Amino acid sequence: MMPSTTNPQLNRNGELTHLLSIEGLPRAVLENVLSTADAFAGVGDREVKKVPLLRGKSVFNLFFENSTRTRTTFEIAAKRLSADVINLNINASSTAKGESLLDTVDNLAAMQADLFVVRHASSGAPHLIASHLDRIGAHHIHVVNAGDGRHAHPTQGLLDMYTIRHYKKDFSQLTVAIVGDILHSRVARSDIHALTTLGCPEVRVIGPRTLLPAHVEGMGVKVFHDMAAGLRDVDVVIMLRLQNERMRGALLPSPQEFFKTYGLSPEKLAHAKPDAIVMHPGPMNRGVEIDSSVADGGQAVILPQVTFGIAVRMAVLSIVAGSGR
Amino acid sequence: MMPSTTNPQLNRNGELTHLLSIEGLPRAVLENVLSTADAFAGVGDREVKKVPLLRGKSVFNLFFENSTRTRTTFEIAAKRLSADVINLNINASSTAKGESLLDTVDNLAAMQADLFVVRHASSGAPHLIASHLDRIGAHHIHVVNAGDGRHAHPTQGLLDMYTIRHYKKDFSQLTVAIVGDILHSRVARSDIHALTTLGCPEVRVIGPRTLLPAHVEGMGVKVFHDMAAGLRDVDVVIMLRLQNERMRGALLPSPQEFFKTYGLSPEKLAHAKPDAIVMHPGPMNRGVEIDSSVADGGQAVILPQVTFGIAVRMAVLSIVAGSGR
Amino acid sequence: MMPSTTNPQLNRNGELTHLLSIEGLPRAVLENVLSTADAFAGVGDREVKKVPLLRGKSVFNLFFENSTRTRTTFEIAAKRLSADVINLNINASSTAKGESLLDTVDNLAAMQADLFVVRHASSGAPHLIASHLDRIGAHHIHVVNAGDGRHAHPTQGLLDMYTIRHYKKDFSQLTVAIVGDILHSRVARSDIHALTTLGCPEVRVIGPRTLLPAHVEGMGVKVFHDMAAGLRDVDVVIMLRLQNERMRGALLPSPQEFFKTYGLSPEKLAHAKPDAIVMHPGPMNRGVEIDSSVADGGQAVILPQVTFGIAVRMAVLSIVAGSGR
Repeated sequence: MMPSTTNPQLNRNGELTHLLSIEGLPRAVLENVLSTADAFAGVGDREVKKVPLLRGKSVFNLFFENSTRTRTTFEIAAKRLSADVINLNINASSTAKGESLLDTVDNLAAMQADLFVVRHASSGAPHLIASHLDRIGAHHIHVVNAGDGRHAHPTQGLLDMYTIRHYKKDFSQLTVAIVGDILHSRVARSDIHALTTLGCPEVRVIGPRTLLPAHVEGMGVKVFHDMAAGLRDVDVVIMLRLQNERMRGALLPSPQEFFKTYGLSPEKLAHAKPDAIVMHPGPMNRGVEIDSSVADGGQAVILPQVTFGIAVRMAVLSIVAGSGR
Repeated sequence: MMPSTTNPQLNRNGELTHLLSIEGLPRAVLENVLSTADAFAGVGDREVKKVPLLRGKSVFNLFFENSTRTRTTFEIAAKRLSADVINLNINASSTAKGESLLDTVDNLAAMQADLFVVRHASSGAPHLIASHLDRIGAHHIHVVNAGDGRHAHPTQGLLDMYTIRHYKKDFSQLTVAIVGDILHSRVARSDIHALTTLGCPEVRVIGPRTLLPAHVEGMGVKVFHDMAAGLRDVDVVIMLRLQNERMRGALLPSPQEFFKTYGLSPEKLAHAKPDAIVMHPGPMNRGVEIDSSVADGGQAVILPQVTFGIAVRMAVLSIVAGSGR
Repeated sequence: MMPSTTNPQLNRNGELTHLLSIEGLPRAVLENVLSTADAFAGVGDREVKKVPLLRGKSVFNLFFENSTRTRTTFEIAAKRLSADVINLNINASSTAKGESLLDTVDNLAAMQADLFVVRHASSGAPHLIASHLDRIGAHHIHVVNAGDGRHAHPTQGLLDMYTIRHYKKDFSQLTVAIVGDILHSRVARSDIHALTTLGCPEVRVIGPRTLLPAHVEGMGVKVFHDMAAGLRDVDVVIMLRLQNERMRGALLPSPQEFFKTYGLSPEKLAHAKPDAIVMHPGPMNRGVEIDSSVADGGQAVILPQVTFGIAVRMAVLSIVAGSGR
């Protein structure tokens, strides 16, 4: 048995107690999230979209970086579990008064929160918060990473896995391509870790050299700079969002040029298997990384990803809240 | 039977399924809202101000334009119906990232919302959203217009009708005057449609030529430019808010000048019937469109309008949520 | 019997119906808050952190001045009492449209609120709102001051008293020192009134002349300008936050200079009794008014203050909501 101290996300029984990163999580933990999400997937279709699992629990959405979309999905997931939700836009408050991150965390912990959903522009902030909570003995509070810097976006990674499993059933025969700005993408990192852990035999990354991390091959992926070759016979295409700031930066000639080379058009998609699915974490830049006819076409599963995301976040919140530490 | 396709607000049984505009709604539909609101009017006086009609439903307040007052009344109405409420200030989020309105709507629909309450600076946005939802087959989502550009503010129109009916019982003998900036007022448009539909025999509009729409007579109203003549023997006076931006614009000499000619003073109000009621959608510009002694006087029913507004919004939310499509 | 008209916070039975200021409240009223808070202190440790006392009541957080921390503690307290909470950041809304404070209050009252939690930059605003509500006959609405200008922050004062009583049991033998910017501190004013009302025999204030109110001795406190003398043998040290704007102002040489003379270091704290507790309303300026080793040390009870604050605010909300008027 590996001692739990090596992974701050797991309690001594190996159960998920924080969700900070998919990196380092055992396959069984990921599969447990996916099968728990299965059980929640039907709740959204009911007349009364609520289960009482987190009744009386307080979920704090700590958004140090604005993201209405992600905050909303967590808020919905928590409310469907009957939790009380407190939204905190932290930029506008304590840190503006010069208080340190950990003083803010101490104060919120003292308000008897049960769950912190943390979004932060700095990589590692949720990790820092989780280890601080353990150090001060706040073992009743669980941390879920809702995106930190370029590091990780684990619930996005998990909902991507849920989506792939939903459409493809089994990871063991799949070829998956991740396309675009791999370098700056926390989604790409989370997806790569999840796919390799779940036994996907071939993960490819496709993008220009300027948007690929150095030594990316070390993550167990095959590198392509050409869409025709990279998409050949893949089962799943995961397109990444090209950040606005990147479009005006030195790393790229222009959005039009990017689209010509790496934008997913019907012609490029034709290199993939005929039943390949197309995914995107949103929000999309139509005409930059993806053509509208593909985004709205029959192979796209971009909106089902959003729906599955609610069930996956319900699963994560209920699993970590139910774990002792 | 008229096919439902002619009016996107009604389902095939002629029931209200979206509330986009009062224009084109049959009298029976308006009367159903008013009588449903009657049933809810008592809820606000109870010890426990809640009914379980929308328990487990998700109401999304999509405010593309800021309006704390209107958002608050919808939030209260939805919570009194036991719904879960998600507030989204959309300016600050997805559209800032360059996502289109309809992509945003697709995403929110994929989160299994039940109701969209939409406020938008552009006329027609709620209509566009409703027809898009029907096109993509999201028949479980209902749209309520909370004010779009200069076009409509139907729940304000309905609460105005509720207020008039409360004090005057019967529309069939009434003369109603709407005063001020008719040109830019969505409230005026909604009120005129509602009054004529409910059988009010005489609707007057009073204002300077620069603030009246061309061809306003085509809406079935009598036009006055003089307060003494326009208010003569009316039963109801609906004052409109003069927008700040209008006060500094080319259409008006000055707020002081406007008040002298069109501001509702006790002297001008004396031309109306002695038991005439005075209404205003708020927020008021005291000393511009209305004198404080009238605003706070015995004929004003401006604050009851606010209270009735909660019941009317509860009625609208529960009626559309209960309609199939 | 003193007629209730002399104190707008009490109803004719002498029960708390608004909480505007600790000044003028009888000892029995303060003690009732503290003992009611005792009963709520356990709720935060339960599996289901909710009691149904305010179910169906609407609590409006009217924050005319931003304070995420205080708003959050009231939001949690209200939700644990099962109330519906409406957050209103009023700067961004009606007053921006030129509506007066009292028109805003009239409108919110017409929405059938039960409780207004008011934060305002102007001293006296909650008082003004409470007397206006009484004047218009809105006797069902209760006002709780969440901080007004330099005037009062009564729930902070009450949670400070709860904290002192928790650790020291009895006020009748205590010496309490309040340190720092007394002049601009609403917390200091509330604490001084509460301590003298609860029978604390010696309250000291310590600070530079520029940060002490003129005639502060008239409030029944002893004045010190030297920490060694002021902290000698005290049981409780209440440090105040030095506002950022003060640090750059003419009243002080520099934050470093302030820390040297008035910052609570272990050396200065050694003048107090060995079992003295250290309090701070937060957020702290480490290295300005307090040294980190003291803030994180064994005598600090700064985080328990936050936890107790939830129970105290639950007590205040439930007491005023339960009082007739």
